[in-house]
Amino acid sequence: MNKFARYDKTCDSGLGYCDAESDLPSKILIKGGTVVNAEHQEVADVYVEDGLIVAVRPNIKVADGVRVIDATGKFVMPGGIDPHTHLAMEFMGTETIDNFFTGQAAALAGGTTMHIDFVIPVDGSLSKGYEAYVEKAKLACMDYGFHMAITKWDDIVPKEMEIMVKEKGINSFKFFMAYKGSLMVSDDLLLEGLKKCKSLGALAMVHAENGDAVFEGQKRMIELGITGPEGHALSRPPVLEGEATARAIRLAAFVNAPLYVVHVMSTDAMEEIARAQKSGQRVIGEPVVSGLILDDSVLWDPDFITAAKFVMSPPIRALGHGKTLQAALSTGVLKLVGTDHCTFNSTQKSFGIDDFRKIPNGVNGLEERMHLVWDAMVESGQMSATDYVRVTSTECARLFNIYPRKGAILAGSDADIIIFNPNATFHISAKSHHSRSDTNVYEGRSGKGKVEVTIAGGRIVWENEELKVVPGSGKYISMPPFNYLYHGIDKADARYLTSLKAPVNRIRPSL
Amino acid sequence: MNKFARYDKTCDSGLGYCDAESDLPSKILIKGGTVVNAEHQEVADVYVEDGLIVAVRPNIKVADGVRVIDATGKFVMPGGIDPHTHLAMEFMGTETIDNFFTGQAAALAGGTTMHIDFVIPVDGSLSKGYEAYVEKAKLACMDYGFHMAITKWDDIVPKEMEIMVKEKGINSFKFFMAYKGSLMVSDDLLLEGLKKCKSLGALAMVHAENGDAVFEGQKRMIELGITGPEGHALSRPPVLEGEATARAIRLAAFVNAPLYVVHVMSTDAMEEIARAQKSGQRVIGEPVVSGLILDDSVLWDPDFITAAKFVMSPPIRALGHGKTLQAALSTGVLKLVGTDHCTFNSTQKSFGIDDFRKIPNGVNGLEERMHLVWDAMVESGQMSATDYVRVTSTECARLFNIYPRKGAILAGSDADIIIFNPNATFHISAKSHHSRSDTNVYEGRSGKGKVEVTIAGGRIVWENEELKVVPGSGKYISMPPFNYLYHGIDKADARYLTSLKAPVNRIRPSL
Amino acid sequence: MNKFARYDKTCDSGLGYCDAESDLPSKILIKGGTVVNAEHQEVADVYVEDGLIVAVRPNIKVADGVRVIDATGKFVMPGGIDPHTHLAMEFMGTETIDNFFTGQAAALAGGTTMHIDFVIPVDGSLSKGYEAYVEKAKLACMDYGFHMAITKWDDIVPKEMEIMVKEKGINSFKFFMAYKGSLMVSDDLLLEGLKKCKSLGALAMVHAENGDAVFEGQKRMIELGITGPEGHALSRPPVLEGEATARAIRLAAFVNAPLYVVHVMSTDAMEEIARAQKSGQRVIGEPVVSGLILDDSVLWDPDFITAAKFVMSPPIRALGHGKTLQAALSTGVLKLVGTDHCTFNSTQKSFGIDDFRKIPNGVNGLEERMHLVWDAMVESGQMSATDYVRVTSTECARLFNIYPRKGAILAGSDADIIIFNPNATFHISAKSHHSRSDTNVYEGRSGKGKVEVTIAGGRIVWENEELKVVPGSGKYISMPPFNYLYHGIDKADARYLTSLKAPVNRIRPSL
Amino acid sequence: MNKFARYDKTCDSGLGYCDAESDLPSKILIKGGTVVNAEHQEVADVYVEDGLIVAVRPNIKVADGVRVIDATGKFVMPGGIDPHTHLAMEFMGTETIDNFFTGQAAALAGGTTMHIDFVIPVDGSLSKGYEAYVEKAKLACMDYGFHMAITKWDDIVPKEMEIMVKEKGINSFKFFMAYKGSLMVSDDLLLEGLKKCKSLGALAMVHAENGDAVFEGQKRMIELGITGPEGHALSRPPVLEGEATARAIRLAAFVNAPLYVVHVMSTDAMEEIARAQKSGQRVIGEPVVSGLILDDSVLWDPDFITAAKFVMSPPIRALGHGKTLQAALSTGVLKLVGTDHCTFNSTQKSFGIDDFRKIPNGVNGLEERMHLVWDAMVESGQMSATDYVRVTSTECARLFNIYPRKGAILAGSDADIIIFNPNATFHISAKSHHSRSDTNVYEGRSGKGKVEVTIAGGRIVWENEELKVVPGSGKYISMPPFNYLYHGIDKADARYLTSLKAPVNRIRPSL
Repeated sequence: MNKFARYDKTCDSGLGYCDAESDLPSKILIKGGTVVNAEHQEVADVYVEDGLIVAVRPNIKVADGVRVIDATGKFVMPGGIDPHTHLAMEFMGTETIDNFFTGQAAALAGGTTMHIDFVIPVDGSLSKGYEAYVEKAKLACMDYGFHMAITKWDDIVPKEMEIMVKEKGINSFKFFMAYKGSLMVSDDLLLEGLKKCKSLGALAMVHAENGDAVFEGQKRMIELGITGPEGHALSRPPVLEGEATARAIRLAAFVNAPLYVVHVMSTDAMEEIARAQKSGQRVIGEPVVSGLILDDSVLWDPDFITAAKFVMSPPIRALGHGKTLQAALSTGVLKLVGTDHCTFNSTQKSFGIDDFRKIPNGVNGLEERMHLVWDAMVESGQMSATDYVRVTSTECARLFNIYPRKGAILAGSDADIIIFNPNATFHISAKSHHSRSDTNVYEGRSGKGKVEVTIAGGRIVWENEELKVVPGSGKYISMPPFNYLYHGIDKADARYLTSLKAPVNRIRPSL
Repeated sequence: MNKFARYDKTCDSGLGYCDAESDLPSKILIKGGTVVNAEHQEVADVYVEDGLIVAVRPNIKVADGVRVIDATGKFVMPGGIDPHTHLAMEFMGTETIDNFFTGQAAALAGGTTMHIDFVIPVDGSLSKGYEAYVEKAKLACMDYGFHMAITKWDDIVPKEMEIMVKEKGINSFKFFMAYKGSLMVSDDLLLEGLKKCKSLGALAMVHAENGDAVFEGQKRMIELGITGPEGHALSRPPVLEGEATARAIRLAAFVNAPLYVVHVMSTDAMEEIARAQKSGQRVIGEPVVSGLILDDSVLWDPDFITAAKFVMSPPIRALGHGKTLQAALSTGVLKLVGTDHCTFNSTQKSFGIDDFRKIPNGVNGLEERMHLVWDAMVESGQMSATDYVRVTSTECARLFNIYPRKGAILAGSDADIIIFNPNATFHISAKSHHSRSDTNVYEGRSGKGKVEVTIAGGRIVWENEELKVVPGSGKYISMPPFNYLYHGIDKADARYLTSLKAPVNRIRPSL
Repeated sequence: MNKFARYDKTCDSGLGYCDAESDLPSKILIKGGTVVNAEHQEVADVYVEDGLIVAVRPNIKVADGVRVIDATGKFVMPGGIDPHTHLAMEFMGTETIDNFFTGQAAALAGGTTMHIDFVIPVDGSLSKGYEAYVEKAKLACMDYGFHMAITKWDDIVPKEMEIMVKEKGINSFKFFMAYKGSLMVSDDLLLEGLKKCKSLGALAMVHAENGDAVFEGQKRMIELGITGPEGHALSRPPVLEGEATARAIRLAAFVNAPLYVVHVMSTDAMEEIARAQKSGQRVIGEPVVSGLILDDSVLWDPDFITAAKFVMSPPIRALGHGKTLQAALSTGVLKLVGTDHCTFNSTQKSFGIDDFRKIPNGVNGLEERMHLVWDAMVESGQMSATDYVRVTSTECARLFNIYPRKGAILAGSDADIIIFNPNATFHISAKSHHSRSDTNVYEGRSGKGKVEVTIAGGRIVWENEELKVVPGSGKYISMPPFNYLYHGIDKADARYLTSLKAPVNRIRPSL
Repeated sequence: MNKFARYDKTCDSGLGYCDAESDLPSKILIKGGTVVNAEHQEVADVYVEDGLIVAVRPNIKVADGVRVIDATGKFVMPGGIDPHTHLAMEFMGTETIDNFFTGQAAALAGGTTMHIDFVIPVDGSLSKGYEAYVEKAKLACMDYGFHMAITKWDDIVPKEMEIMVKEKGINSFKFFMAYKGSLMVSDDLLLEGLKKCKSLGALAMVHAENGDAVFEGQKRMIELGITGPEGHALSRPPVLEGEATARAIRLAAFVNAPLYVVHVMSTDAMEEIARAQKSGQRVIGEPVVSGLILDDSVLWDPDFITAAKFVMSPPIRALGHGKTLQAALSTGVLKLVGTDHCTFNSTQKSFGIDDFRKIPNGVNGLEERMHLVWDAMVESGQMSATDYVRVTSTECARLFNIYPRKGAILAGSDADIIIFNPNATFHISAKSHHSRSDTNVYEGRSGKGKVEVTIAGGRIVWENEELKVVPGSGKYISMPPFNYLYHGIDKADARYLTSLKAPVNRIRPSL
């Protein structure tokens, strides 16, 4: 795959600074484009210096030596932020094929300039997990942040959560309601976790599937002799995602904590989120690209590898779910789009050749997200460009409390910018993508709209179909707690207490 | 309470046959009433001989020696069947105040001629539990059947379930999703239970509250210093009932088993049942009288005993829930009405004087059900007399597979009959009720409509405000499995298997 | 089509009594079948004499001369009642191809022994319409009743409605919310109609589509050059049926009148009905066979005649709607199944060759209903045989207040009976059907279960694949008002008035 | 009311420029406040010059002569924009008591710096109506825009709509589904209106109540002798608002046009909006302050004037509706808050002393909106300050296409700014309010949070509880069509056409 040649040779091997570095201009003027933010779009120039956006207004004049890019007829938008990735993750006996360098390089080629990855505890230890991910992330060529998974509960875990929030810049924790026997947590633990998150101002996230029932479903499929990838989908139908989503939402309501539901894959789950919102509850639903775009027919493909590459959890659903998720995204019922990028190559996927339970779960998407969301949502007429910016970037930055440093084209923001040509065409293929995987779940897709230039941290890293990235150049973005979902929670709690009208003052009866 | 004098003196003490026996006519003609069945009502005579209904038609002529009752202007209806009672149950360190004699006597005085009680396993043993209840039921003065609770799971339990169904006449099993640490079952156990029930053709029942969250709620209340009865309601709000109801329904859908949700107390739970029905799922919802009629304001009563008598689980809800439950009952979204009759007297209720968690849970209702349902549903214009018969008697008989022996005024049916005067008035008070409890949660209520005569097993047991009951005269009603909810389940399962289009036939790749 | 030969030759021409008459036994014993009523099924014999069911019990002994039919292994069920047909109706410039003789003959061949047809007023006159239908119905060979359509409003209409109810045995009136410019009524008229129906105890029925929007949709399609049958469906999508259904339901709620929604064709409409029921409103939804079974792909058939035969209103919907309607029917959200049998032959359908607006609307179904509902609902495992009887017969009899004369296998009921072999097979084809139409919308379908014998009014009219029917032998069934939906309405109204707490007693201010 | 003294004396009489003018500083620095925009809040200074915001950043240094306001500890927010007012409107035989001067003065005293008023056609003429309102608005002391009502349909109306949009700066038209006989439009007209709006890129608005049913309800109340203000509410219950909202939404879906539902007063209507959004439809719901805050018990007040002042349409609803509307607003199901400010004084309200149908409909709110929304939503913990800005200002500016000129504290925006002290207290009383009305529907309310300074168009118009306003100083804000809701509509329409797969190519049969 010679697309990697350039930086692989120069940089990746030694992990030192790349020669490319010296090429990068520190001053850039993007002229004449339509600058799109979540609230508004208008024609303006954007001037970048030393990694920051310095000015956004029409007719900026600059001195010589400034790299000028003509963006006339194009959209100038905040770089994408992917709220949900797994790079260099050990899972199901193997490790994802994309590490912090190759995964991020792919992201940049697709217009995403930041992602938030999930730290997995090591032997239940949050701090060990954190250290491991700090190590993994040394390869980073773009900015990134961390969520953290909580997979057990004891006296140490809540203390470590506090350290993560107060000292390490982590403001979100994920709980798995599935993966019985490994990651899965019970309702008590989830309640404890929600309360701890709330006290820290951290956002609780859930992977919502009923793990006990999934386990039952898996047994059933194996007993029926259904061992192939279709068995994966059949063993964990939408009703189990709907169930767990409803449960998590209600437990969160019970402790009055905000909730973030990752990878909403089904109409069932979306309906629960919509219901909660209607009642005033603060629940965020994150669809992922695969759930919006694909349907489960692919899992019935007679070729194992073709079918297995689509295996992820919750599974890709039957035709129709994607369309309802798109509709919900278009009106803000669902708020932002992730990928759950978690790639395994054909060899790894083949671990499950005889048993779908052993197929490593995960699909790609980091590089494709920005194109596919534009195509599915904006080109189809379901969404404006401003809303596109909101769901691919701004809302993520707001939720994880780094707006407007990220997620906006504003003076003072980080210079994470894409230039998007709505009249160009994108094509997706494993042959040309930048992930290390040898397959791509979007193989052969093309559509309108193309990220022509990506600027990350003020440097042009993608231009003319070429990547110029440097391992180690990405920064860790510390994310403070108490995002906007927490505003007023203390007042609501106080109001709740008042509403109890209790304890009732009673005279003790003489019995 | 001299109302008990007559049979207490004569009968209860010795538990032998009562003198009253000889008074009872074996041939009865009920003349000129409006006979009401679930499908239809019309004016007709009803002739009873030797415990059975022999004829139902206009203008029946009988010989001398037949007791003739004039029912002109009155309704002649099947005796009530209460699907949900707890007589002589040991619970929370004490035992309910009503045993099989006093509870049933009260029932008969209120027009209920059969009930189904919950056998509680002894030390986890179903057969020991069954034997204990056989013993308790020797006092019975009316017909009764048994459900059985399942509180743990091991290799023996499913075998005993099979024995109960095939040999003991039990066709339903209840699972508690609440009472953490004692009765509560996990999702796996519930799944196992649902599958076993399905294989036996038994009906799975659930007490639907999220036990983990209730436990958390209780802790919260105690920490807030809310130790009184209001803390009971506050610790387990409707959202937790809605959650567990939704969960049980979806797990039942996942294994395609019929489900019966006992004591639906909240709009939240009812909505879940309605949703499932709309999608074609076979879910039965049972509201209880207290949930239909009362509201939770009573739990804030400054008098502890007054407040504590209303403590039951799920708790009585805020104003509004009862009304939506009535509406759902009126159109068949909810199917039949129980009581969860489980009485404790003031002394017992006082065990929880310092901690609501120690107040024995339960309210009365066996005697009051028929009157209160008529008043709330028929007198209010929400329901016809035929539907009244359906929800108080017929549907219960159909569900537990004893129709038309029970639940109908048809030739051949058991002679369990009430004569109901829609123009008379009922009054409720602990002073005059027949339960042994010293309190009544419906104290002081009155309304239109009155059970003037109760005939049970062909004998007049309630007339002129007098009971004539005999301990030991009640029969155990064996209830066969595979009720109407099971019709077609095998075909639906077969259709499901076909729909999977799996396993996919794949050529094994050479890896 | 020689299947018609026998009675066409002998009877139809002269419309006099048929020789067949003398063949008909007046005493019949059906032995050993499983007798199915809506509440219960059990093995029993059924004895018929002089048009009535005389006895239903095991082991009936009869004298010689009684025709004995062995029904062992078969179901003995009430003959079907079709609540929705249009025989001999003038519509869209032509007249339906089936009159009261051929349509009813077809019905009997398919196990339906009664139907209720819609009288259409003549020049707005209800009495003239009634007389015209009395004339048409002289050909009747089975029992029938009448609904009546209301298509305009003036001083005379409500007076005639009263006559129809009090003197003519009509207890239901239909209002069309579609067919702008001809049958359509405005909201005021619908409100007036609902009020008048309520005062008479008659059931108001609606054809629920937004006629203004349909008109707009038709214009749109013609402007787009879409003149074929697919344009029919596209011009009146489900959203317009959902809208009108919601509107009718709410207007009925506003005047507290029961409502019957005819031909519920879409998920949208069903959802509205379910919602109303959940809130306690008395709304009956009637799906029709075509809506349960077919999908709209047929309207895109490249052969005009093939496509045009499926044109009806509301249109047959996209795949998926039928399945949700079946689910709702299986649990009682929808209550009974009609056909809207309204057949036009190919020549008539061709009136719309250049403009779908001119294709006479209507499909067949009278003969096929019983088989197709069994196949779709019972064979698929969604419904029990008892529920099958309910939705095809009993509920219709109850709603139109003729139960238990019709809709039951009970001593005293009319001897309208079918013997149904669940192991035989049905086949549908225009070649063999008994309608006069040259096409059949279920052409080529087959399935399990077969009506082997039909007994109507005590005579065997269908046996060994042969019809023995006599024009003029069918009776008009007078249907009294105030069905069970009306029970308690006066009390509910009284409760409503009390709830108003008005007028407020105010002292007039001195202004 | 001496609060008016200052400007009434100096300015109002002559309607010329006020001396106050010269006092107004053209350069203002607001120091140290927390600047709140819809997306974000942070501490910054705001510098204003010549009516525009020039800079927003920390530590702005200014020269002498600049008025500096210390906003430490306070919020600096965009001035409120009220999307729904009726100033100087002739209605029900009288004219609202507040004209463009007094109404706007009140608005400014309450922190609202712009409103959009409804032009009512004169004799059906849009242009005459427009001219009349241009005249009325000459008194304006703050910026304003116009919606326009459409009350009939002929060949001229659509042409005038085009002129209004293309030449007059109006980008929205309102249709009344109520007020039978005067403003009410039929479904055809609404469909025509929606199509015309769509072609112009204008936003269609609806007053959603079923006018036919309201008329019926009014008759019913009068017949029942209920002539007082409570009859107003009883004659038009929530079900009629739900109905019309559902209808409007579906008709808008049918023509794929965006829709704006004014004054959402009931849970019923909100539910319909939520449902549409979930399915991807672009529907905006506008609750008004009275609907969020009040309940209908006031209409039962024994004092006529007290009750009558609350009469508006749709009516204020029973307790509970406001709470669900607040919940829906808190999560974005409802998008922005208006007032429907339409004030009549006691004398005018008394026109309906004998008949509630003659009570002029309308309540105040322009001055109170900002305080009451803060109190109900932010102080209660349901909403963040950023969301408060969104619902009171930014979303309105975006919807009517004038963002970021209005609705933001950004460099370049109009200097419409409020300084809000969250620790101060507001009090409402007719004694101190600035409307001309002698009553106030929020009489006696107080709460936390106070608009201490209002800057409109760069001038300090409200400070130290004093107004400094000048009739004629307000500018008309021209509002361009094709707001963000229109983005992609053309693409969606194209996708719809493709989806039809029609016309089907058919060979004409030889008939």
